[in-house]
Amino acid sequence: MRNTNRQWHLVSYPEGMPTESNWAMSQSSIPQPGDDEMLVRAIYLDVAPYMRGRISPQQNYTAGVSPGDLMVGGAIGEVVQSNDPSYKQGDIVVSGAFGWQDFGVVKPAMVRRIDADVAPLPCWMDFLGTNGVTAYFGLVAAAEMKPGDTVVISAAAGSVGQIAGQIAKLAGCRAIAITSSEKKIARCRELGYDGGINYRTESDLPAAIARVCPDGVDVYFDNTAGPILDAVLQNLAPHARITVCGTVSLADRFDKPDIGERFMRRILVSRARIQGFLVSDYQGHYEEAWARLLNWYRTGALKCEYDIIEGFENTPKAFLRLLTSQNLGKQLVKVDQET
Amino acid sequence: MRNTNRQWHLVSYPEGMPTESNWAMSQSSIPQPGDDEMLVRAIYLDVAPYMRGRISPQQNYTAGVSPGDLMVGGAIGEVVQSNDPSYKQGDIVVSGAFGWQDFGVVKPAMVRRIDADVAPLPCWMDFLGTNGVTAYFGLVAAAEMKPGDTVVISAAAGSVGQIAGQIAKLAGCRAIAITSSEKKIARCRELGYDGGINYRTESDLPAAIARVCPDGVDVYFDNTAGPILDAVLQNLAPHARITVCGTVSLADRFDKPDIGERFMRRILVSRARIQGFLVSDYQGHYEEAWARLLNWYRTGALKCEYDIIEGFENTPKAFLRLLTSQNLGKQLVKVDQET
Repeated sequence: MRNTNRQWHLVSYPEGMPTESNWAMSQSSIPQPGDDEMLVRAIYLDVAPYMRGRISPQQNYTAGVSPGDLMVGGAIGEVVQSNDPSYKQGDIVVSGAFGWQDFGVVKPAMVRRIDADVAPLPCWMDFLGTNGVTAYFGLVAAAEMKPGDTVVISAAAGSVGQIAGQIAKLAGCRAIAITSSEKKIARCRELGYDGGINYRTESDLPAAIARVCPDGVDVYFDNTAGPILDAVLQNLAPHARITVCGTVSLADRFDKPDIGERFMRRILVSRARIQGFLVSDYQGHYEEAWARLLNWYRTGALKCEYDIIEGFENTPKAFLRLLTSQNLGKQLVKVDQET
Repeated sequence: MRNTNRQWHLVSYPEGMPTESNWAMSQSSIPQPGDDEMLVRAIYLDVAPYMRGRISPQQNYTAGVSPGDLMVGGAIGEVVQSNDPSYKQGDIVVSGAFGWQDFGVVKPAMVRRIDADVAPLPCWMDFLGTNGVTAYFGLVAAAEMKPGDTVVISAAAGSVGQIAGQIAKLAGCRAIAITSSEKKIARCRELGYDGGINYRTESDLPAAIARVCPDGVDVYFDNTAGPILDAVLQNLAPHARITVCGTVSLADRFDKPDIGERFMRRILVSRARIQGFLVSDYQGHYEEAWARLLNWYRTGALKCEYDIIEGFENTPKAFLRLLTSQNLGKQLVKVDQET
């Protein structure tokens, strides 16, 4: 086991698209857990689009990271030392608030115990983690998805998008992927998506959506905002529902006004509903959703795909990979433990 | 009684803000009702913001008026001749589909019988007509208004706005008027609004809303879109709900893209809901709402204000008055019948 703790700290707020130079790595001594606390060694670190919102001086839904702070992020890790009777050395846990570091001191209330025999560890950051409940409640609750709906999902080959497409199919819907490469469309089709649109190669995205969704879009699970949202708004079915889950297309202009066409007449005429969505509002119901997702996984109806980058030093790189749509499935960093 | 039928026809689609020259008046003979039809003489003609959408070549929620067509619009009128046993000469009716003309042939299924002893005739185009149910369902159903909400209403001194503000107060909410003059703010306050903002004289509308709504806007009844909507979007309370009922601020650029800032991060972070709204979706429940509105009117809890222009020849002028925010309460045209 390492005898120092590597950490990534934010150095500066990014202007537009973040770069590796917005973070710096340092080493310090391994922290000591206090009473009722435990020391956890990271096995996988999470990188996720929500982190773009945290490294901005703009108001967000939760406190941000200031320059100088340890970078936020979840992790899957192993308990190294426990001062709490309910956890013992060797237990595997997942924490939503760990930080980009080798070792973290966590309180039992802030972790969940996980079991690699139930599903491989990365799945606990995917459908058995926040991404699973995000896809589930974003479609089932926020969008009130109904069988027969045409469901369009952006960032469809990302973690939330892959789960969402599979849930839409399980719910009797037609699922259409919007993503950034033919390879990703192929992956989405393997997972059950009925069709896919490559937004990078389509010269007329509204027309492409109209072609694939001739009766309009009933549900749009929006992970991107920007031009993809604009194109969907021009193809709304009556009573369309849009879940505004993420805005990753704004990653390179996060603190600037997003100027473009508004579509208020179309929203009015189609009686569309646009619903801002934070999964944490559904926290009291996570266990119900995870139980369903796990059932589907066990029967083979739900697949879990992940994209692992090796090496702690590559954590910012993995995050940038995600922001520039290079990942296929849940993006994680596997932490190297030998010196 | 007149012996010719005056009619206003659309001559051309307006480019931007309509002008009187978009219509022309003609005279023809009085039409004859067929079997089960009746001939109705207009007493009041309706002018309303929805008509801007009808005189555009753009797709709308219902068929538009083409150049050459009789201009659409509702009316309150008197039955002059009836070939249907359920109506007799002298009955007073309201019709949503009459047209800008002196005489119309209507089918009984397309009219409602009204009673001037229950409420003055103009009220049947106001709270006892479409505007009443628009205000009611726009707040109660679409926005799911709750007691204690801060409810902001644009075009607050218009017919829908005046009714909406009164309903919000009856529902235990704080009602804030956004309108275009001090005189209109005073009228809104007389009707019970707690505060008002004059968007024409405020140099910083987002700051003005922040001042009047320090805890943010819970419900916004949007009759305007444009800069007022933009300013509200910068002042959303968590879980804010916006009813997109009208877009009258776009009247002068109806067929052009509406370019400006989008506020997707704010919508996401505050979990706001933006709901496109057409009252006709609630048609099966109109009677319930009218019964409640009439009860409030009878007890004095709801007031009915209208703004009457005299003379059939002034119908386009009255419509333009509405589009340029000059009316105070429901705008109607009183049809002169002599000669």
